Amino acid sequence: MQTKFSPARPVRAEDVPHVDLEADVVIVGFGAAGACAAIEAARAGAQVVVFEAAAAAGGSAALSGGEVYVGGSGGTEVQRAAGFEDSTEDLFKYLMMAGGPGADEARVRLYAENAAAHFRWLQEQGVPYKGSYLPGKWLEPMTDDTLVWSGSETAWPFSAAAKPAPRGHTAMMPGAGAGKVMMERLVDKAVSLGAIAHYNSRALALIVEADGRVGGLVVRIDGRPHYVRARRGVILCAGGFISNREMVGRYAPAALSCTMEVSAGNDDGSGIRMGIGVGAAAIHMDQFFTTLPFFPPESLVKGIFINERGSRFINEDAYHGRVSQYILRQPGRRAWLLVDNPIFARPEFFPDIHIAAVGETWQDIEAELALPAGALTSTVAEFNRHATEGRDPYFHKNATWLRPLTEAPFAALSFCPEDFPACAFTLGGLATRPTGEVLDADGEAISGLYAAGRTACGLPRWGEGYSSGMSIGDASFFGRQAGRCAAGR
Amino acid sequence: MQTKFSPARPVRAEDVPHVDLEADVVIVGFGAAGACAAIEAARAGAQVVVFEAAAAAGGSAALSGGEVYVGGSGGTEVQRAAGFEDSTEDLFKYLMMAGGPGADEARVRLYAENAAAHFRWLQEQGVPYKGSYLPGKWLEPMTDDTLVWSGSETAWPFSAAAKPAPRGHTAMMPGAGAGKVMMERLVDKAVSLGAIAHYNSRALALIVEADGRVGGLVVRIDGRPHYVRARRGVILCAGGFISNREMVGRYAPAALSCTMEVSAGNDDGSGIRMGIGVGAAAIHMDQFFTTLPFFPPESLVKGIFINERGSRFINEDAYHGRVSQYILRQPGRRAWLLVDNPIFARPEFFPDIHIAAVGETWQDIEAELALPAGALTSTVAEFNRHATEGRDPYFHKNATWLRPLTEAPFAALSFCPEDFPACAFTLGGLATRPTGEVLDADGEAISGLYAAGRTACGLPRWGEGYSSGMSIGDASFFGRQAGRCAAGR
Repeated sequence: MQTKFSPARPVRAEDVPHVDLEADVVIVGFGAAGACAAIEAARAGAQVVVFEAAAAAGGSAALSGGEVYVGGSGGTEVQRAAGFEDSTEDLFKYLMMAGGPGADEARVRLYAENAAAHFRWLQEQGVPYKGSYLPGKWLEPMTDDTLVWSGSETAWPFSAAAKPAPRGHTAMMPGAGAGKVMMERLVDKAVSLGAIAHYNSRALALIVEADGRVGGLVVRIDGRPHYVRARRGVILCAGGFISNREMVGRYAPAALSCTMEVSAGNDDGSGIRMGIGVGAAAIHMDQFFTTLPFFPPESLVKGIFINERGSRFINEDAYHGRVSQYILRQPGRRAWLLVDNPIFARPEFFPDIHIAAVGETWQDIEAELALPAGALTSTVAEFNRHATEGRDPYFHKNATWLRPLTEAPFAALSFCPEDFPACAFTLGGLATRPTGEVLDADGEAISGLYAAGRTACGLPRWGEGYSSGMSIGDASFFGRQAGRCAAGR
Repeated sequence: MQTKFSPARPVRAEDVPHVDLEADVVIVGFGAAGACAAIEAARAGAQVVVFEAAAAAGGSAALSGGEVYVGGSGGTEVQRAAGFEDSTEDLFKYLMMAGGPGADEARVRLYAENAAAHFRWLQEQGVPYKGSYLPGKWLEPMTDDTLVWSGSETAWPFSAAAKPAPRGHTAMMPGAGAGKVMMERLVDKAVSLGAIAHYNSRALALIVEADGRVGGLVVRIDGRPHYVRARRGVILCAGGFISNREMVGRYAPAALSCTMEVSAGNDDGSGIRMGIGVGAAAIHMDQFFTTLPFFPPESLVKGIFINERGSRFINEDAYHGRVSQYILRQPGRRAWLLVDNPIFARPEFFPDIHIAAVGETWQDIEAELALPAGALTSTVAEFNRHATEGRDPYFHKNATWLRPLTEAPFAALSFCPEDFPACAFTLGGLATRPTGEVLDADGEAISGLYAAGRTACGLPRWGEGYSSGMSIGDASFFGRQAGRCAAGR
């Protein structure tokens, strides 16, 4: 009997010695995608079993801020209450731009048209939203408020393409980490609808029928392989691959420098590898979210980032993850945030930031950073000259965040690799239809196999365009589609 | 009987109705990788059949400059005759840096230690090399000379990591396109050693045995499927995927803006898709070579590139493909090469270049390009000030190429998308061992399957690090390894 399994190698149905378990829909992973898939599949009348590698449900979503990126259809009730109309077309345009050159129009269209309804659905599942709007620039609300600006909506070039609206919707919980509340409710709902959850249960390999159809799964429970038959389909919701350094090196080497994994620990890429093993295409595997959380407080957004040439490289009011993508690409990832006295602060999420230089003049700062003479000072002078006029002709920073940096003392906060670790999670994954059907390299569906969440390549597929709430928005919305599609097969 | 085939879906051996052809080693594609694989497999005593989709052999290599990037071991005889010592360690360091953050050390090590011997092997197969060195900066020799500088060896940051040497070795042929001569000789050699070539023969799908081993190939010849049994192995040498726009969009969307395909026409990704269909991992699929051939003449290297902010962004003496990668990333891909009168010329490979601005002062040029006031003029002033001192503290351009741009009239040559099309080919492909064995998503070899050339992800796997000769150097060298390994199985 087979005792060693590899996610990359499916087990042939004829080699399955016996069936330990059988269900209509078998889901791997009980995070945001898996929970929403389970809810919809159970509602559609399917018998649902979920295998979760961890000792408890929630996945990486439960450790996150729990933001969901939704809007359109004139606005969610929260957006409208706060005075924001949000057309489907503006949401569509923003998401297309955020998806980058490889954006999937059909997927974006489906999401944009149904995102506001999806928010109501989340409420109906019991996820609590206070309904209040929190202005300003935040990574996630530290209050129990619902609605925040969570992307690059008001920042160039996004602001020029789509009318801005805040779209980050967060469950009610004071402090960071409202993903916990959201996941508790979604998991409870899935279980109450009859989904059977197995914890400490690691998926080892898919089972493939003679005709190529995925017919089940081998799972390790209590230290031994269990053979699970899936009558209607297997849905892979096993997360991304940021915790698998070897995969990161092969697929997204630019993320190797990010040492802080945004993961509950099981983003080992096994879901993606199981898909690849049965001939699925994995796409946009080089793309990842990254952040060096330089604000709040938002006063720091009024500073300017420079590289070792003393040059600016981004409008600093863009989404922090976008700014961080640019920081990572500077020579040697050497970058500093220049601030003057009125805006100086320590970033809340990284108060131990290294202050690389302090001085009474910008010449002092330039010398202390050992930059070429004139490099930094000319950049600051040019920035100040334009900021005084309320404009930024080079990088198009929004006037809200423009003020000249003229009040000593001055400082340079270090975002160099040795001083400021970068966080990351992966965006690439299995190619799927909006229904969750996993696609082979010629774009044909692999029968019986579905994927959602970061195991799939979804809405967020371009690091420069990521906005908070896109990953869970995508995982929950397309998890639902996969659950429905698999149940109805 | 099956009449429709998809590269992404292998045929199961039990569904093969009959065997039309049988050989020890079956090779898909008769370009550089396929020809070298055929030579070595035949020499090792294997019966070899090659299927080529085109009407003739040669692949994309036959349309290329035919440069092979070799050196090390103290230097090839051509390098040594020209006065260049070239240590294995310097070649190793350069190639590791050129491979970028995902460089494959084992592969680079094997290549660096054997590259000089590989050059002798190419000579032994009958490829003619004149043995002469052509100084200066060229895309490829327009003369019949052998040795040119074909990468970023003397340019920062490569020059700081490894002692520079010219390593582009080109077959003897006056004018461009010496790849034709090289491929004629390699193909002749393969055929003379007994390899049987079938032209107009398109591989449709792999055949997989019950145990997962690749056992053959379905090929369309004379309009009908032929079933081919491979006793020892199938070697995929079917090129990259630049000619398949859908694949480019899914895997390397940044290359979508490159409208000139560097391909003989059959780089449709079918080899990669056949690999994916049997569970192979495809890696670094986002990476591609690109060029906007801005020189020769080399006087243009003394110009400076600026973007729409009036900022420089690269040392212009780097390999033209590296400079082009940076051009592609500027906002809107808007970039201009600034030149003064003594260095002005039209690029030989694109004489119809659009001259976007001409003027008696740099202020004229700035105004004509409609750049922010002071943006271009301050950049030129700063560059000139340092160039006069023979240094470039911001971008580290080598002093050889530094002179102030002070002699009117001045001009700006446009490298904007509407004016200057970019060329590209893809670098991502199937994960392989240095032996050519194709790997699954867990890094285990798929029995019976090999890949080389652009169907595999080889030495060149980072667009920023590419140098001319790396693709054919890799294809020919690792094609040989695959041929030997498959024959010896």
